Amino acid sequence: MIVDENGAHDAPCSISHMTTREKLPDDTDLAIRVMATPADTNSFGDIFGGWIMSQVDIAGSIIARRRAQGHVVTVAVNSFLFKHPVFVGDLISCYGKITKVGRTSLTVHVRAFAERLGRQHECIQVTEADVTYVAVDENRRPRPLPDKV
Amino acid sequence: MIVDENGAHDAPCSISHMTTREKLPDDTDLAIRVMATPADTNSFGDIFGGWIMSQVDIAGSIIARRRAQGHVVTVAVNSFLFKHPVFVGDLISCYGKITKVGRTSLTVHVRAFAERLGRQHECIQVTEADVTYVAVDENRRPRPLPDKV
Amino acid sequence: MIVDENGAHDAPCSISHMTTREKLPDDTDLAIRVMATPADTNSFGDIFGGWIMSQVDIAGSIIARRRAQGHVVTVAVNSFLFKHPVFVGDLISCYGKITKVGRTSLTVHVRAFAERLGRQHECIQVTEADVTYVAVDENRRPRPLPDKV
Amino acid sequence: MIVDENGAHDAPCSISHMTTREKLPDDTDLAIRVMATPADTNSFGDIFGGWIMSQVDIAGSIIARRRAQGHVVTVAVNSFLFKHPVFVGDLISCYGKITKVGRTSLTVHVRAFAERLGRQHECIQVTEADVTYVAVDENRRPRPLPDKV
Amino acid sequence: MIVDENGAHDAPCSISHMTTREKLPDDTDLAIRVMATPADTNSFGDIFGGWIMSQVDIAGSIIARRRAQGHVVTVAVNSFLFKHPVFVGDLISCYGKITKVGRTSLTVHVRAFAERLGRQHECIQVTEADVTYVAVDENRRPRPLPDKV
Amino acid sequence: MIVDENGAHDAPCSISHMTTREKLPDDTDLAIRVMATPADTNSFGDIFGGWIMSQVDIAGSIIARRRAQGHVVTVAVNSFLFKHPVFVGDLISCYGKITKVGRTSLTVHVRAFAERLGRQHECIQVTEADVTYVAVDENRRPRPLPDKV
Repeated sequence: MIVDENGAHDAPCSISHMTTREKLPDDTDLAIRVMATPADTNSFGDIFGGWIMSQVDIAGSIIARRRAQGHVVTVAVNSFLFKHPVFVGDLISCYGKITKVGRTSLTVHVRAFAERLGRQHECIQVTEADVTYVAVDENRRPRPLPDKV
Repeated sequence: MIVDENGAHDAPCSISHMTTREKLPDDTDLAIRVMATPADTNSFGDIFGGWIMSQVDIAGSIIARRRAQGHVVTVAVNSFLFKHPVFVGDLISCYGKITKVGRTSLTVHVRAFAERLGRQHECIQVTEADVTYVAVDENRRPRPLPDKV
Repeated sequence: MIVDENGAHDAPCSISHMTTREKLPDDTDLAIRVMATPADTNSFGDIFGGWIMSQVDIAGSIIARRRAQGHVVTVAVNSFLFKHPVFVGDLISCYGKITKVGRTSLTVHVRAFAERLGRQHECIQVTEADVTYVAVDENRRPRPLPDKV
Repeated sequence: MIVDENGAHDAPCSISHMTTREKLPDDTDLAIRVMATPADTNSFGDIFGGWIMSQVDIAGSIIARRRAQGHVVTVAVNSFLFKHPVFVGDLISCYGKITKVGRTSLTVHVRAFAERLGRQHECIQVTEADVTYVAVDENRRPRPLPDKV
Repeated sequence: MIVDENGAHDAPCSISHMTTREKLPDDTDLAIRVMATPADTNSFGDIFGGWIMSQVDIAGSIIARRRAQGHVVTVAVNSFLFKHPVFVGDLISCYGKITKVGRTSLTVHVRAFAERLGRQHECIQVTEADVTYVAVDENRRPRPLPDKV
Repeated sequence: MIVDENGAHDAPCSISHMTTREKLPDDTDLAIRVMATPADTNSFGDIFGGWIMSQVDIAGSIIARRRAQGHVVTVAVNSFLFKHPVFVGDLISCYGKITKVGRTSLTVHVRAFAERLGRQHECIQVTEADVTYVAVDENRRPRPLPDKV
């Protein structure tokens, strides 16, 4: 039966065919999901920390742009803690939730998960951070956030 | 109320604050979600067709690797039809479903959607394709797909 | 004698010093010739299928732009069949021929060959596809193809 | 006189021919100095925050690797504050100083400066952060830092 | 008639439909043909000189690897002269000819041409250089060039 | 004592903890300092010659832009000689000095050094070259160099 063959239903990080360690958040919060490639490695073949920071920033900015209905710039990031290495071939999912809204700025809580796609399938949280963005106009001047529809 | 401010609940491509044109598939099928960047443009500043083909192939291979529990290689792709241009800053989501499973090969149906994050928020299907992969061992020789758990 | 030392005359894919498997097309149809680099690999160190699709699209668009004397966009691609893996260091040559011309669109038949540059020199066709492009003006609206000079 | 023509002596961020705003640290602490390129931009043509975070991480790891005499991995980063935008063409200098040394880990304080190379020459601090690294062996297991020579 | 519609026969840099300025060399010497993309630009949107030098080096190494039947490393390059700017979207063709062969080294004369694909079709030589390579074994030690077959 | 732990004071290429082979120039001449990454390798895993040429060109253009107070384009490069291979993970420092100034053009002497960050710490000059730039206006026409302040 085709539906049974669908990888999607036991996909990402379900219990059936892997060593699940953590459950992924609700998918409606998923900002980006990207594969770590050889081009993102440091000189030892690992995915370097800065690449993951980049993904977290991109993810947060996507959530922020949806709410701001236009341009945003990053103004602050709080601490990252890297608990697990990320390897080439890992699928990185970044989830974001707006946790604070000001007049021109907003803060997004971003969590990044790594899903190993090899034989020992597993899914672990790699890092999380709070990133603050400011909505800007074409001249990069802060502009008030639009009302929520 | 913080929860109301959460961009996630009206994200992606819901009805509330944008010109919805199409509804995204169930998120459990989401293989990748990436932003189209200036580095992916052709000489006229558009995202070129080949970049989208690449994303479709990566997306399908992720679904295939989950089912194959290991390496896969692309062996065939059927037709792409590009109905809408993709612009820098668009968020591209590729969804995949396994539609056929053989002894060593499997076919994934991939659909790619573009979500514009600007003022005129919209979400449209860009392309779709059926991509066939073969599970391979370390010497690139076809190997039987594992039983489904 | 210098001319005898010239690698060019027994270059690409002639009979003299390698296991020729296929003969390359007439060079006047050569759209692009690029080296597959480590930056184009997937997580297993192979050149991934999507990269080859990209090259095929770029190659076809070059042939199309010459005929259209300006911008073109990709509107459709028919099936790819990948018969042989491509490795880092392979030289990929994409040849294109216009096979159909409409009022605003044209179709290019593209063939991609891989030339291994190592000791066991060989040259094989990797894939082929028909790609259709539409000539567009600055506002991305279809425009009639110019008369052939 | 040639020596007078040497751009180096009034370079980087001296008083003579530009609107100096800040003085760069002692050059012996300079970990990396890189140009922000169009490939590092977000969809609005700005250098995005994540790219700068990446550079800070690379810079810190260089300082850490010198001291650790081998591999290190990033384990934590404290807050970034982005006071000024970075533009394409800016020269980014990251300076690092080791501020804490444990048995297997060390912390590097990194400061990033942007130097605009255009007509209105200026030099400003963009961000700073404390990054902690752990020295690891080939199996990624923590190893004691070598004695300082 | 299909053959008449073939862009290839009046391609590259023939007289019929463009302001030909120079004639391209015999295609059997063509080492690489690549498109200059937005990712290769400097901060002013031009293709920067260093990118062209890179292509010249890659082109020469391909010719050298064919003759050396294996690895080569660049040991010297003589002067480049850049007569014309290269723009995004230009098609760059690098032609190489072996001009000198020693016991372990060989020199390739490389010429680079830019073909503009826009309305004002033209084809001009951008630079040329002599690049010397040494054949090396797996330990990067010079090895004698194989006899010519 | 914290200050003693600072990697910076015995950094780059001092005598204390490595096999110094050459002394780096005065840091005020440092144009760029970048890490050679896996994305910059050729098919054999080495950093290829063309990448180093690119860095030399970028370095020279930075020195030139400071003096020209605006855009410059590369017009000529004299010979490169590559004495040592560059490996992934090496830190490449390019130093530049203006050696000649004309009405619209100037020449920069660039030297590139590689610093290995592994256990066998060493620092060696990789190449040097004289690069000539012309100051240009927005229409790429040569413009007189400004007076030195």
